[in-house]
Amino acid sequence: MSPIELNKRQDAILQIVKENGPITGEQIAERLHLTRATLRPDLAILTMAGFLDARPRVGYFYAGKKNTVSLTESMMNLKVKDFQSMPVIVSENMTVYDAILHIFLEDVGTLFVADKDNHLQGVLSRKDLLRTSIGSQDLNKIPVNIIMTRMPNISYCSKKDSLILAANKLIEHEIDSLPVVEETEEGLEIVGRLTKTNITKAFISLAETHDL
Amino acid sequence: MSPIELNKRQDAILQIVKENGPITGEQIAERLHLTRATLRPDLAILTMAGFLDARPRVGYFYAGKKNTVSLTESMMNLKVKDFQSMPVIVSENMTVYDAILHIFLEDVGTLFVADKDNHLQGVLSRKDLLRTSIGSQDLNKIPVNIIMTRMPNISYCSKKDSLILAANKLIEHEIDSLPVVEETEEGLEIVGRLTKTNITKAFISLAETHDL
Repeated sequence: MSPIELNKRQDAILQIVKENGPITGEQIAERLHLTRATLRPDLAILTMAGFLDARPRVGYFYAGKKNTVSLTESMMNLKVKDFQSMPVIVSENMTVYDAILHIFLEDVGTLFVADKDNHLQGVLSRKDLLRTSIGSQDLNKIPVNIIMTRMPNISYCSKKDSLILAANKLIEHEIDSLPVVEETEEGLEIVGRLTKTNITKAFISLAETHDL
Repeated sequence: MSPIELNKRQDAILQIVKENGPITGEQIAERLHLTRATLRPDLAILTMAGFLDARPRVGYFYAGKKNTVSLTESMMNLKVKDFQSMPVIVSENMTVYDAILHIFLEDVGTLFVADKDNHLQGVLSRKDLLRTSIGSQDLNKIPVNIIMTRMPNISYCSKKDSLILAANKLIEHEIDSLPVVEETEEGLEIVGRLTKTNITKAFISLAETHDL
């Protein structure tokens, strides 16, 4: 994702909204031949920067450039849901050896461990796996639930949290990834993954917004 | 590092500069009983936000709040040198086993490999080490130079680069860390380490600046 491409995409979105607003995210995505998920960060940044306004069940419309609000106030409007990635979930009985293969196969830094109802049971980082891999045990015989981080030691966030709150959790707890969860009576349902990569992308998007 | 502490520190810096400016970073650090390195990100953010101005060989002085410049223009002034971490450097002959112990001891995600003159020879990520650890070889017999990433495949940055340029390199090359180097005739001298953690901290600092 280079800066130039992203700016072009933001430009294209603005043009579509100017000509067709109010228009839903789905409809914008369709016109650009992209998925709604791909457009989320751009729409969030454009809304934050005051170029677009969004009304529930109506869609996006062009707002021009609003009176400047403070950067922090604007940044508080960047939400986890607009920047999160897909979670990669494994079961508690997977062996550590298979988990290591899985983390490479999926090319992520963290696996989440869930029960059969998709409720969060644990977190496995690349660091946890590396630590175990140099131990003397047979990696094919240890299930991940022996080495994973468990509640109440797991930091997590929700889709509606501000990206800044999530970034603070990543720094304070010195971790690379947070599960994004929905709290239900049965437990914490895993709905996403929020990483320092997501924050780094948001940082870049912020810087690119002025070129509009 | 909680938001509140950082804001207090930025407030304290502003107060000192208002009363004593022009004043050097060293002198501000001394008054706060902190190191110059600790203050770097705060000074960068305060300068970016237009509260402070800096003149080479003179120091910082209070600028009031300048006319608003665009966010990107401001963000371009955030430099790698103000946010970088200390590099952790190992020699080419270290074994993979020792490198794994070292990465835990130093609690970093990436080791840089250098020759005896501190010139960059390679990069070793937690991912490289994990991949090797599940192979069939004896980790005590493989030197890191067998598995490290070498030039010309290493992405790096310089102290004077903008943080945004560095962030773009991290995303484009799908890596967690860049060596910060000085180019000399003899090679690339390693002077720092720039990670997604540094970018995440900068993102948080940006959001905190308005509270002044």
